[in-house]
Amino acid sequence: MKKVGVILSGCGVFDGSEIQEACAALLALAREGAEAIVCAPSGPQMHVVDHLAGQPAEGEARTILTESARISRGEIRPLAEVGVHEIDAVLLPGGFGAAKNLCTFAVDGADCTVHPEVETFLRTAKAENRPIGAMCIAPVILARVFGADLSPQVTIGTDPDTAAAIHAMGAQHVHCNATGIVVDETHRMVTTPAYMLAGGIAEVFDGAEALVRKLLAL
Amino acid sequence: MKKVGVILSGCGVFDGSEIQEACAALLALAREGAEAIVCAPSGPQMHVVDHLAGQPAEGEARTILTESARISRGEIRPLAEVGVHEIDAVLLPGGFGAAKNLCTFAVDGADCTVHPEVETFLRTAKAENRPIGAMCIAPVILARVFGADLSPQVTIGTDPDTAAAIHAMGAQHVHCNATGIVVDETHRMVTTPAYMLAGGIAEVFDGAEALVRKLLAL
Repeated sequence: MKKVGVILSGCGVFDGSEIQEACAALLALAREGAEAIVCAPSGPQMHVVDHLAGQPAEGEARTILTESARISRGEIRPLAEVGVHEIDAVLLPGGFGAAKNLCTFAVDGADCTVHPEVETFLRTAKAENRPIGAMCIAPVILARVFGADLSPQVTIGTDPDTAAAIHAMGAQHVHCNATGIVVDETHRMVTTPAYMLAGGIAEVFDGAEALVRKLLAL
Repeated sequence: MKKVGVILSGCGVFDGSEIQEACAALLALAREGAEAIVCAPSGPQMHVVDHLAGQPAEGEARTILTESARISRGEIRPLAEVGVHEIDAVLLPGGFGAAKNLCTFAVDGADCTVHPEVETFLRTAKAENRPIGAMCIAPVILARVFGADLSPQVTIGTDPDTAAAIHAMGAQHVHCNATGIVVDETHRMVTTPAYMLAGGIAEVFDGAEALVRKLLAL
């Protein structure tokens, strides 16, 4: 049974992992017979967003790992304690948490930095030839970490500003529809737009299924 | 397009809605061509559970509606403002939130009381002949609200203590496997065990799909 490290960034689209995307990834892995090793980096979330009001909740603080544990029913490990030798592939669901907690793209755009635990894990995974999948906005992390050296092909759908930032970081952006995937066979990366483009939950699950099938085949 | 009121109870299995079950319900509704009207009652959660530690987080307070909004990407309405005339059916996902925030079953067992907004909504829905679906532990709410008058057939899987409590509240418990459904055609109720019994996420999505198909057909 293949094992896939799923890196979460909190719990909720505006300050953490997009919940439906994370569940779509977990379901697709289960249906394809793979085991998810759910993990998240240490440290506080950039902020907490009141998802009802759509605004930051002043004075609240939450931890990336602790909130991520909600999605996986408590079955989660600190990313720093997961060895790349334990897994066969890596998968990054989206949500603003990927651009706020796993890296600083939401604030710094193409000048963003990546959470050191995430960067170390991804660089090690690449060095060990593990395929990497990313959904929604998470491909910007691949652009930041690998763009200058490898110039991989990724997609976030069609958003011109995000695509321009991906190019600025040295990666290549490829347009893609909501349920499609972009595969970089050379660098063993597969990406899908998910809620960067999807009109609803069914498209997100369709895209995740396509991504996971390819990720496990790479 | 049929509209289904989906009543959430927070965000996270141990203090709110079971996230995977809620997503499974939303996906099944979308795939069957129905619109989800996601809603949640007012008021604070019974408590906040640290899902990493598996223990209550002392001193933290969160609101049922605000946390539920994380699952539906902010698209949610206060239950008290949703009219039964707007919907064709009701669906209650599970998670401890259903037994802690929507009713007091987790604390009081068969002597539990139901959140007044939830009880009013369900009684009105029944009076207006709307079919009702419930997953996981949520059927105890149907037992509490309708058991004495209607003695409906429901399932929570096979757990003997919960089944005994359902009988004590006047409803009939029917054993069921993880991906199966129990249908009470007379009272137009359909229930599925979900994570009361499921061994993994794929079974939860299979059970939710079966439940939603029947709920829309009732």
